[in-house]
Amino acid sequence: MRWRIHGERQIYDNPWLDLWLVDVEQPDGHRYEHHVIKLRHLAVTALLDEERRVLMLWRHRFVTDTWAWELPMGLIEDGETPEEAAAREAEEETGWRPKSLRPLVYAEPANGITDAEHHVFLAERSVWTGPPTEVNEAERLAWVPLSEVREMIRRREIVSGATLVGLLALLVDQAAPGS
Amino acid sequence: MRWRIHGERQIYDNPWLDLWLVDVEQPDGHRYEHHVIKLRHLAVTALLDEERRVLMLWRHRFVTDTWAWELPMGLIEDGETPEEAAAREAEEETGWRPKSLRPLVYAEPANGITDAEHHVFLAERSVWTGPPTEVNEAERLAWVPLSEVREMIRRREIVSGATLVGLLALLVDQAAPGS
Repeated sequence: MRWRIHGERQIYDNPWLDLWLVDVEQPDGHRYEHHVIKLRHLAVTALLDEERRVLMLWRHRFVTDTWAWELPMGLIEDGETPEEAAAREAEEETGWRPKSLRPLVYAEPANGITDAEHHVFLAERSVWTGPPTEVNEAERLAWVPLSEVREMIRRREIVSGATLVGLLALLVDQAAPGS
Repeated sequence: MRWRIHGERQIYDNPWLDLWLVDVEQPDGHRYEHHVIKLRHLAVTALLDEERRVLMLWRHRFVTDTWAWELPMGLIEDGETPEEAAAREAEEETGWRPKSLRPLVYAEPANGITDAEHHVFLAERSVWTGPPTEVNEAERLAWVPLSEVREMIRRREIVSGATLVGLLALLVDQAAPGS
């Protein structure tokens, strides 16, 4: 039941995204050109404090014209690992630098159309290094109690896929016996 | 801290995706053209049985060349609601038709670049109506115990963003007192 790729051609080429048409054959034999969007990958950090609160940014996303809470995140640059990107973005966006990171969850946000990857890390210890240097993103920052997160999600105050997979994985892990 | 849109121009137009360049101004005044991908939205269903197992499909995604478990899902067609799409796709892909659906979680999978929406529903009662009519997607189907899901995620046997937000939200809700 593997879909077979017979060839591909690039129809748009840009540092931010590439668009390809892939000559693909479905298991039933039907063959056609399928769009594929190649995007840069994202690194995301859930910074947790000792009171089980997670650091979040209230920000506007013009693409969907939504205001919502998100975890700090950013695109992984050439030459850095997802973990390095997560730490860098967290510090740039919040002023808090994670002291150690461990992988929390990996997601392919829309793997029917794009190869984008979301790498979410957990930082249980962080150090304040100064005000955020990235000023275009967060309207404000807040340490949000994990206990409030599920209800915030229901109210659509958290909608970012990368943020959702991270927070929900964290809630599951925190609820597990012995965690 | 709202990003302001000054204008937009379409650079690619297709039934599956549109690509736009949006003339946007960041809060710090920097103004440039930002890519936006307009995609069709996805409806997803977590069908649960009485033994707290969830119906999943093992399938190949050629875009990332990954094999993994996913919830049934598909694109919302013109004229149908997300809920109708979720029920239709579940039946086409699994042979099980949900008897009732309730919203589980809403996600914007990558709202820094695309306006795509993921609408995930929960169906606690379903009826078998016959073999799946969609044959190109699942290698096989299985009722997977919810108790196994978090470990499957750790092993990257579940990577689809829409599937992850649905399953993790379900796990959180199931663990909540009184649920």
